[in-house]
Amino acid sequence: MMACCGGCLCCQCCCNEGETRTPEELTILGETREDEDEILPRKDYESLDYDRCINEPFLEVLEGLDNKRARKYEAIKWILVFAIGVSTGLTGLFVDFFLRLFTQLKLSLVGQSVEECSENGCLALSLLELLALNMMFVFISSVLVLIEPVAAGSGIPEIKSYLNGVKIPGIVRLRTFICKVTGVLFAVAAGLFVGKEGPMIHSGAIVGAGLPQFQSITFKKIRFHFPYFRSDRDKRDFVSAGAAAGVAAAFGAPIGGTLFSLEEGSSFWNQALTWKVLFCSMSATFTLNFFRSGINFSKWGSFQLPGLLNFGEFKCVDGDKTCHLWTAVDLAFFVLMGVAGGLLGALFNCINKRLAKYRMRNVHPKARFIRVLESLLVCMVTTLLIFLASVTLGECRDLVSSSNNTSTQGSVNEEVNSTIRRFFCYNNTYNDMATLFFNPQEVAIHQLFHQNATFSPVTLSLFFVLYFVLSCWTYGVSVPSGLFVPSLLCGASLGRLVANVLKINFHMQIYSGTFALIGAAAFLGGVVRMTISLTVILIESTNEITYGLPIMITLMVAKWTGDFFNKGIYDIHIHLKGVPLLEWETEVEMDKLTASDIMEPNLTYVYPHTRIQSLVSILRTTVYHAFPVVTENRDNEKEFMKGNILISNNIRFKKSSVLTRAGEQRRRCQSMKSYPSSELRNVCDEQTAVEPAEEGQDILQQMLERRHVPYPNLYPDQSPSEEWSMEERFRPLTFHGLILRSQLVNLLIRGVCYAENQSSASQPRLSHSEMTEDYPRFPDIHDLDLALLSPRMIVDVTPYMNPCPYTVSPNTRVSQVFNLFRTMGLRHLPVVNAVGEIVGIITRHNLTHEFLVAKLRQHYITI
Amino acid sequence: MMACCGGCLCCQCCCNEGETRTPEELTILGETREDEDEILPRKDYESLDYDRCINEPFLEVLEGLDNKRARKYEAIKWILVFAIGVSTGLTGLFVDFFLRLFTQLKLSLVGQSVEECSENGCLALSLLELLALNMMFVFISSVLVLIEPVAAGSGIPEIKSYLNGVKIPGIVRLRTFICKVTGVLFAVAAGLFVGKEGPMIHSGAIVGAGLPQFQSITFKKIRFHFPYFRSDRDKRDFVSAGAAAGVAAAFGAPIGGTLFSLEEGSSFWNQALTWKVLFCSMSATFTLNFFRSGINFSKWGSFQLPGLLNFGEFKCVDGDKTCHLWTAVDLAFFVLMGVAGGLLGALFNCINKRLAKYRMRNVHPKARFIRVLESLLVCMVTTLLIFLASVTLGECRDLVSSSNNTSTQGSVNEEVNSTIRRFFCYNNTYNDMATLFFNPQEVAIHQLFHQNATFSPVTLSLFFVLYFVLSCWTYGVSVPSGLFVPSLLCGASLGRLVANVLKINFHMQIYSGTFALIGAAAFLGGVVRMTISLTVILIESTNEITYGLPIMITLMVAKWTGDFFNKGIYDIHIHLKGVPLLEWETEVEMDKLTASDIMEPNLTYVYPHTRIQSLVSILRTTVYHAFPVVTENRDNEKEFMKGNILISNNIRFKKSSVLTRAGEQRRRCQSMKSYPSSELRNVCDEQTAVEPAEEGQDILQQMLERRHVPYPNLYPDQSPSEEWSMEERFRPLTFHGLILRSQLVNLLIRGVCYAENQSSASQPRLSHSEMTEDYPRFPDIHDLDLALLSPRMIVDVTPYMNPCPYTVSPNTRVSQVFNLFRTMGLRHLPVVNAVGEIVGIITRHNLTHEFLVAKLRQHYITI
Repeated sequence: MMACCGGCLCCQCCCNEGETRTPEELTILGETREDEDEILPRKDYESLDYDRCINEPFLEVLEGLDNKRARKYEAIKWILVFAIGVSTGLTGLFVDFFLRLFTQLKLSLVGQSVEECSENGCLALSLLELLALNMMFVFISSVLVLIEPVAAGSGIPEIKSYLNGVKIPGIVRLRTFICKVTGVLFAVAAGLFVGKEGPMIHSGAIVGAGLPQFQSITFKKIRFHFPYFRSDRDKRDFVSAGAAAGVAAAFGAPIGGTLFSLEEGSSFWNQALTWKVLFCSMSATFTLNFFRSGINFSKWGSFQLPGLLNFGEFKCVDGDKTCHLWTAVDLAFFVLMGVAGGLLGALFNCINKRLAKYRMRNVHPKARFIRVLESLLVCMVTTLLIFLASVTLGECRDLVSSSNNTSTQGSVNEEVNSTIRRFFCYNNTYNDMATLFFNPQEVAIHQLFHQNATFSPVTLSLFFVLYFVLSCWTYGVSVPSGLFVPSLLCGASLGRLVANVLKINFHMQIYSGTFALIGAAAFLGGVVRMTISLTVILIESTNEITYGLPIMITLMVAKWTGDFFNKGIYDIHIHLKGVPLLEWETEVEMDKLTASDIMEPNLTYVYPHTRIQSLVSILRTTVYHAFPVVTENRDNEKEFMKGNILISNNIRFKKSSVLTRAGEQRRRCQSMKSYPSSELRNVCDEQTAVEPAEEGQDILQQMLERRHVPYPNLYPDQSPSEEWSMEERFRPLTFHGLILRSQLVNLLIRGVCYAENQSSASQPRLSHSEMTEDYPRFPDIHDLDLALLSPRMIVDVTPYMNPCPYTVSPNTRVSQVFNLFRTMGLRHLPVVNAVGEIVGIITRHNLTHEFLVAKLRQHYITI
Repeated sequence: MMACCGGCLCCQCCCNEGETRTPEELTILGETREDEDEILPRKDYESLDYDRCINEPFLEVLEGLDNKRARKYEAIKWILVFAIGVSTGLTGLFVDFFLRLFTQLKLSLVGQSVEECSENGCLALSLLELLALNMMFVFISSVLVLIEPVAAGSGIPEIKSYLNGVKIPGIVRLRTFICKVTGVLFAVAAGLFVGKEGPMIHSGAIVGAGLPQFQSITFKKIRFHFPYFRSDRDKRDFVSAGAAAGVAAAFGAPIGGTLFSLEEGSSFWNQALTWKVLFCSMSATFTLNFFRSGINFSKWGSFQLPGLLNFGEFKCVDGDKTCHLWTAVDLAFFVLMGVAGGLLGALFNCINKRLAKYRMRNVHPKARFIRVLESLLVCMVTTLLIFLASVTLGECRDLVSSSNNTSTQGSVNEEVNSTIRRFFCYNNTYNDMATLFFNPQEVAIHQLFHQNATFSPVTLSLFFVLYFVLSCWTYGVSVPSGLFVPSLLCGASLGRLVANVLKINFHMQIYSGTFALIGAAAFLGGVVRMTISLTVILIESTNEITYGLPIMITLMVAKWTGDFFNKGIYDIHIHLKGVPLLEWETEVEMDKLTASDIMEPNLTYVYPHTRIQSLVSILRTTVYHAFPVVTENRDNEKEFMKGNILISNNIRFKKSSVLTRAGEQRRRCQSMKSYPSSELRNVCDEQTAVEPAEEGQDILQQMLERRHVPYPNLYPDQSPSEEWSMEERFRPLTFHGLILRSQLVNLLIRGVCYAENQSSASQPRLSHSEMTEDYPRFPDIHDLDLALLSPRMIVDVTPYMNPCPYTVSPNTRVSQVFNLFRTMGLRHLPVVNAVGEIVGIITRHNLTHEFLVAKLRQHYITI
C-alpha cells in the first residue's frame, strides 16, 4: 500500500534530507539505485481543484443569479459555518465527557486498590487490574483503526495535505470520523502517551467537509437534496473552517485555530473567508466552554473552561512586588532552552522516522492483526513502566510545604491538591512520580506549570526520559494519537528541571511555571516546527499576552535549530506517505529552470468535436485527469474543411474562438451604434454566416482524430505509426481549453453527443447541477456500458470544457509558475507558447521539491 | 488638487452608495451629469508591482546566486525586520514620553489654576491659560501638516491604499514621518479629540519602507550603498511589517498587528512573511514595553506596560463567586449594542463624509492658512466646551464609595484614584465630568472600564454627545489625527450608560466594565468596519481570551448593520481621495463580463528592436507605464525580411521566441544524447544558422516602425493615416513581453543601443543593479537630452523586458481576472488571444468597482 523502501541506514543519513535522487535523474545518470531508501512523491495522489471552471452550464446558472440570491447563498454559508463550529464543539464535549468518565473510573479503581495494597502487599493484583483495563481500551481503539486505517495517527499530516490541495482518499469520510473520535477516546483512556488534540483537529475538518454536503458515502441513507457547495473550492473553505474549529475546541484558541488553517492551507488570504473561519472557531470554543462549564461546575451560562487543554492561570502572588513572570535576563535562558528543544525535537523526529520506516517495511505488509498486537505491546510496556516507576522511584514530598507555597493560587490549587497521589507516602507527604503518572495528562501539565517546588530532579529527569521514549514509540502505532500533550509534558518536565536547578543551585529569582511553559514550547516547537499558529495557540492557552515574546523567540530558535537536522514530524510523515506537498516557495536556485524545463511535454488531447470511440479509447488507455482541448494548425485547412463535417466543425470552432483586436473593435463600434439613443444603428453589417460543410472523406478524418497519443491504444489499428517524424508526432496544437476526465465520462454516460448528419446544436444540453451531481465521487470510465454508445457519434465538448484556465508561457520561471499554481490552488496548468500552441502541461507532480531538484541537476549537467 | 465635486445632496443620498454612474457610461447613455457628486477613481494613481520581472540582467544576478547567498539575504531580512520593529517601538516611546510630559505640564498648570480659582473666582483666567496652551500646540501641529499635507488624518487610509497596491506619492517619505510624529504629539497634547494610534501605524509603515533603503529623498545626504530590496515587492513586505509593528506598538497587540497587515494588504499569505511580520510586531511591542516599564516604574528588565493604549485588567473581585465578566444572557444585550453601534457609526461616517466633501469644495481650494485657522477654531471650540461642561455640568460624586468598591483592583485603582479631578467638589467628592475630560484620554478609558458606579447618566450622555460631535468634526481637520481612541471613548460612555441603566433600573447582576468595553467595540466597529484584525486587537488589549466571543459578535453585528447604510470611515476617505482600491472579491454578477469586455483595447506598443526616435516619440506622447513588446503578423514576412535589417531583426526574434513541441522534444532528445554516459552524442545535427540579412529599403521600414499609435505623435508626419481601415489600425500583434516606461527611459539615458550596421549583440549590457539603481524615483523622459541621442540608432529591448508576465485569455471571466490581478499584486495584465496575439491590457483602473459597474450596465444594454 505504501510506496515502500528497503535498506538500513545510519542516523546521519536519516537526519540529512539533502541527498535525494529521483528515478528520472538516475535514468539520466545511467545508474541503478543502491539504497532505495528515499520515498518519492506518489503519482496517484491528485490535486484538488480550487480554480472555478466557468463553462456554459455555469454561465446559465450565473444568468439567473442576482445580488439578492448571492446574499442568500452567503447567509447559508454563515449558517453552515456556525453549525460546523457547534458540531465540532459538541464532538469535543463528547470526547471530553467520556474520557473523563473512563479515566476517573479507572484511576479511582486502581488508585484505591493501590492504596489498599500498599498496606496489604497485593501490588501485583493492582497492576493486573490496571493492565487488563488499559489493554481492553487499546484493543477497542486499535480495532477501530483497523476498520478505517486513515484514522490512525494524529490526522494533522492528512489535514495539512488536504489543505495543501492533495486529495487523499477517505480522510474526510463519516466512517473515519466515527473511528477517529471513538478511537482517540479509548487510546487516551488506556493511558497511552498520546494526546487528543491532533485527532480533534482531524475530526473538526471532517465535520467541515461533511456537514455542508448533507449526504454521506458511508451511510447511503443520509442524503438530502442540497445542491450547493459541490466543488473542491467550497469544500476546502469549509474544511479550513472545520480544522480551525478543531484547534479552537482542543486548545480554547480560536485565533490560533484560524491561523492554523491559514498557515497550513489557504494560500489566498481572503478577508471574508478568514472572518468566517474565526466565527467558526469561536463557535466551537464557546460551545465547548458553555457545556463544560455547565456540566462540570453546574454554572450554566458562564464560560470558564475554554478548551480541552488549558494551561491554567500564570499569576504572581498578589502582594509580591518582586515577582515577575519573566524578565529580560530570562530571555537568554529561553534561547538556550529553544536550542535544547530544537535538538531534542530533531532527535525525536529522527528516531520516529526510523521507527515509521521500520513499521512500513516489517509491520504493514503483514497481516493486520499484527498492528493490534503492536498496540497492545506498547500499552503493556507503558503501563508496566509507569506503575513500576511510581511505586519504586517516586519520592515522598511534603504536602504542606507545597500547598503553603501555592495557597494564593486559589481555585487552581484546590484542583491540584485533589489530584495528588499518596502511593506509599504517609504523614502529609505524597508520591511525586505517581502524582504525575496516575492522573490525566492535563492535570500533569497543570502540576508542572503551577505546583511550586514539589518535584525532585530525579523524578523530573526520569519522567522526561520515559515520556520521550514511550511517546516516540507510540506515535505511529495504529491508534488515533495526538502529539501535542506528550510533547508538552516532555518539554515541561525539562523546563521545570531547569527552573529547579536555577532556583536551588544558582538562587535566581525566577517563576518556575514560566520555565516549564517555555520548556514545553521549546520541545513542542522542536518536534512539530509550526510557526505563527503554534505561537498564537500557546499564547491563547496561557491567556497571557505578555508571554508572546518569550514563546515566539523560543519557538523560532527551536525551529531553526531543528531545521538544521531534519523536518518537522508532520512533514516527515507526509513525506513517508509520498504525498506531493507543495512548499511555500521554491528555492531561489530553482529560478534557473523555466516552465518548459519542468512541464510534461507528452500530451494526450481531445478535439472540440470528437467521436465517442476516440474519447473512450483515450479515457481507457490513459490515467490523466484532464485533457487539453486543441485544434491542429495546418496550412491547407480549406482543403480539409471541404472534406468532412467533423474536421470542418473543429476548424470552424478554431476560427471562431480567436478574438482579434480588429474584430473586437468592430463589435464595440457596433454595440455603440446599436444603442437606442443613437441614430446610427446597424450601419455596418457583416457576413457572419458560415456555409454549411459537406459530408465525406471518412478515412482521413478518422486518421486525424486518432493521432492523439503516444500511448497504447484500445483500438490497436489506430496507434501512431512508428515511422512518423518528430514534426508529425509533435505537430503544433492551438489550445482552446481543458476538460476533466470526470466531465468527459459524465458526458458519455448521459449520452451527450450528436450524429454526423446533424448539427452540433442538436446535442442535448446538461445543466450545471447535472454536471456536478455526482461530486465528489464521479463514475469511472470502466463502469460505462459501451454497448449503449454508438461509437460513430460525435461529442461537442466545448460547452463543458474550462475555456480559459490560467496558462503560462514556456519561458516563465519556476518561481512564477509555482506561485501561480499554489496561490490559485490549480490542478492543471497548461503551458502555451507565443503563438497560442500548447507545448506542455504542469501538475502538482512537476512542482514537488524532489522533481525540481532532479530537473535542476539535469539542467546543470546539460549546460 | 482633489478630484473635486459640486452640488449639495441630502443625507439619504450620501448614505446610499448604490447609484454610481461613471462618465464612460454616461457617454454611452448620452446623458450629461446633473449632480457631479460621485468621486471616481483617479487615473493618475498607479499600481505597485508585486510581480517579479525576471529578465536577462536579473538572470545574471541569479546565476551567481546559490543557496548560501540566499540564506545570507534571508538573514539580512530578519535583521532589518527586527530593526524596523525596534525603531517603531522607539517612535512610540518618543511620542508617549513627550506627550506625557506636555500633557502633565498642561494639566497640572491648569488644574492647579482651576482648583485655586474655584475659590477665588478667576475661572476666566484658567480658561484663557488653557486656551492659549492648546491653541499653541494645535498651531504647531497644523503648520507641520502644511509642510507635508499627506501627514494629515490618521494615515490608515493611505496605508490601506499602499498595501492594496496603489502608489500614493509621498506617503512613505522621511519628511512625512517627521511631520506625522511631531504633529500627532502636539495635536493630542492640545486636547483635541484625536488619537495617536492611527498615526502610529502610519509611522511604522514609513519606518518599514524607509529603513531597508538606507537612503532618503528628503535628506539627500542619507545614502549608504545597500543595493538590496530595490523593488516594490520587497518594499511592500517591509511596509507590511512596519504597519504591523505600528499597531503592535499602539495597542500592545502583536498578533492583531500581523492580522491587520494581512487583512489590509498582502492577499498572498506566505508563511515566511507572516512569521517575519509577527517577529517585527513583537519586537515593537516589547521594545516599547521594556523602555516604558523602565522609565515609568524604574523596573528595567520587566515588562508591564505593553502598548500606548491598553485597557487595564478586567477581573472579578477575588472572593466573589457570583461575579462573572459576562454570561450567555448578556450576549443578547451585546447584539443590541452592536446594532446601536452600527447605526451610530453609520451616522458618524455619513456626517463625516459630508464634512469632508464640504472641506474639499470650500476649504481645500483656498489659501493654505485657512486650514490652520480651521484647526484653531476646532481647538477653541473643543477647549471651551469641555471647560464649560466640566465646570457647570459635572456632578459631585462620592469618592469613598467609589474607591471602596474597587479597592481590590490593586494597582489599576491606585492609578485611577490619582487621576480624578475635584473641580468644585469638596468633602471627599469629585467632579465626574472633569475627571473624564481633564485627563489624558487613556485615563478616561480606564475610568470608564474600571471605575465602579461613579458616573451619572447625565454626565455619560453629555460626554457621549460632545465626543461624537467634536471627534466627527475633528477627523479631517489638517492635523494628524487617529480615530480609535475617540471612538472607543464615545462607545465606552454609551456602554457604561447601558450598564448603569441595567444595574440600577433592572437590578441585573452585570459587570459594568464589560458593557463599557462592548459599547466601545460596537461603536468603533460601526465606524471603521474592520473585521478579524480589530477583533484580535481588542482581545489582545484586554488580555482576556474569554472576551473573544462577545467582541466578535458585537463587531460582526455592528459591521453588518453599518454596511447596510454606508462604508467604513477609512473606505469613505479612500473613496473621496479617488484611490482605485481593489476590493477582496468581485460581486457574483460581474462574472457576466469577460476580460475582453473590460480591457483597454487601444494599445501603444514597441517592437523588440526599435529606433530611438520612435521610442522617444512614444514616451513623450503617452502616459502609459508599460508597453507590450510585439511583432506584427504578416503573411509576406520573407519579403520584408530581405529588405531591412531592423525588420528582419524583429521577425527573426519573433521566430526564435516561439518554442514548439517538436523543437522542444528535439532539444530534450539532444540533451539526453549529449550526456557523457551516452554513446549517441550529436547524432542529430541541425541547421540553426540564420542567413545574415541585407541592408536597404529604409522608407518601408520607417513606415512600419511608426505605425505604433493612435496617438498624437512628436514627429507629425508619422501619424497614422485617417483613411486606414479597421484591419490596418488594429493589425494582429504577437505578444512577446512587457517593458516598463522606467526601463525604457533608463535604456535611453544610459545609451543602450546599436547602430544599424552592427549586430544587436554589440549593444552595451546593463547590469541588474544599474537597472534598479534609481528606484523608487526613476528619471523622466523629459529630463532626457535629445541632442545626445542619435535618433537612427536601434534599441534591442528584449533583454530588459519582462518576457513572461502572467496573461489571460479574452474569454476569462472577471472574477478570475480579478483574483489573478489582486492576489499576484500585478500592475499590468496583458490579454492574449488563442493564437498568441495581444488584444488588450488590463490595469487596476479596469478592475475598480465603479468601472465594472459601468461595464456591466453597458453589457445589459447591449444584450
